[in-house]
Amino acid sequence: MAVTTTRRAIVRVAVGAEPARMPDDLAVESPLVLALDGDALATLMRTPGHDLELAAGWLVVESGVRRQEDIVTLRACREDDTDRVHITLAEGVRAPRPRAFVTSSACGVCSADVLDLHPLVTGAPHTAGWTVARDVLAALPDTMRVQQKAFERTGAVHAAALACAQGTLACVREDVGRHNAVDKVVGHALFRDALPARDRLLVVSGRVSFEIVQKAVAAGVAGIVAVSAPSSLAVDLAREYGLLLAGMVRGGRLNVYSGDDLLR
Amino acid sequence: MAVTTTRRAIVRVAVGAEPARMPDDLAVESPLVLALDGDALATLMRTPGHDLELAAGWLVVESGVRRQEDIVTLRACREDDTDRVHITLAEGVRAPRPRAFVTSSACGVCSADVLDLHPLVTGAPHTAGWTVARDVLAALPDTMRVQQKAFERTGAVHAAALACAQGTLACVREDVGRHNAVDKVVGHALFRDALPARDRLLVVSGRVSFEIVQKAVAAGVAGIVAVSAPSSLAVDLAREYGLLLAGMVRGGRLNVYSGDDLLR
Repeated sequence: MAVTTTRRAIVRVAVGAEPARMPDDLAVESPLVLALDGDALATLMRTPGHDLELAAGWLVVESGVRRQEDIVTLRACREDDTDRVHITLAEGVRAPRPRAFVTSSACGVCSADVLDLHPLVTGAPHTAGWTVARDVLAALPDTMRVQQKAFERTGAVHAAALACAQGTLACVREDVGRHNAVDKVVGHALFRDALPARDRLLVVSGRVSFEIVQKAVAAGVAGIVAVSAPSSLAVDLAREYGLLLAGMVRGGRLNVYSGDDLLR
Repeated sequence: MAVTTTRRAIVRVAVGAEPARMPDDLAVESPLVLALDGDALATLMRTPGHDLELAAGWLVVESGVRRQEDIVTLRACREDDTDRVHITLAEGVRAPRPRAFVTSSACGVCSADVLDLHPLVTGAPHTAGWTVARDVLAALPDTMRVQQKAFERTGAVHAAALACAQGTLACVREDVGRHNAVDKVVGHALFRDALPARDRLLVVSGRVSFEIVQKAVAAGVAGIVAVSAPSSLAVDLAREYGLLLAGMVRGGRLNVYSGDDLLR
């Protein structure tokens, strides 16, 4: 069982009171090296747990992997005191392209890739006539929240989930990195042959930057539901790809930034 | 003047009421290409504004740049519809090393670099006898908050600032990426010959991951004050480097994760 939270002795301070030493739960952040054909390919700073899902979901976004059979080997191990996942891809599957220096508001985005979203679907990412009820949208973050166990302990872990239009969550994953949480959810779907995740909604606990939309498009979901607000680029991209994008979902209220024709 | 927020028509939904179409302010996210000696080196997805500070601060963390004279040219321009900063470094200054695939809980970290923090200071990152009052720490996020103009409009922009032990903020910078906000603050200090930022505190609006500590160490600050919680790795690294690390600073309360001997 992966260790997702850990304890450290801290000093709790309240103005006007004596500082108190006590244990505190923290979200674990540690490196996971992805190795392709034996060569280190990427290092993800992540919260341990569901490492194979994380690697698989990362491959869906970053490489030509579209279904389980595209991955021949996906093996987790610990070498030299570091967690690793060894990957072998099926012949003909496009390998992840190393990018030079790459940083983003969320992570790992290169402008050269802005147009290279290689979506799993073409056209509208939902079945004709697909809609979602407003009250389902409004309830999704709360439904996810009760399953955010690491957040409950630490207050510092992001979460992502896949939901159907009836509001049922297929899986909830947590990570110190919100993009990692999304990758884990996408990997979970890949392992169940559930990609493209047509007619599914990606629920995220934080804000929506360009990179989150990029991952949603790659996974072929119908939309994104976020607790916080999207960036301008996230909204523009969601509109371009026909995704539903709802944000600031709090207390029965929400903003629909893209795809309001999909609401009922 | 850089455009940091923009408007889009959105649909506002409240359960039990009719949806209403209205304009909404969004944080701008757009790519900035950093080019070294004419070659694209990195693409940062950032909120426009203080691009030269962003580039300079990024160089402090990622290259051998330690003072203004290490940078010969830093020139912002717009080419092919993309914002760029052209960089030339002084002879002998270590250039940023391209990293392969690199993603992190915040962004842009490779495990190979975990030990390569190239700090601006060695030993404790503060003058002997330096301390900070608890009530100053507790007030810093609120002091910063009143200067977070883009956050005020969008609710979706991170901020960073440098503060002295008396609680005065030297500069506040905002960005959709919290690591970008930190880079802008570090770049601002570089331009004022104020690095290492000894006896200064880095104030951040969000959580503290490994990468934020890495930037703090590179800038030579005495500590980090965060609105939210740190990860396990952030705490361990802060302790290793002797940084003060305070988090969950809210409503007169805070947790001290590292360096509690620096409190008074």
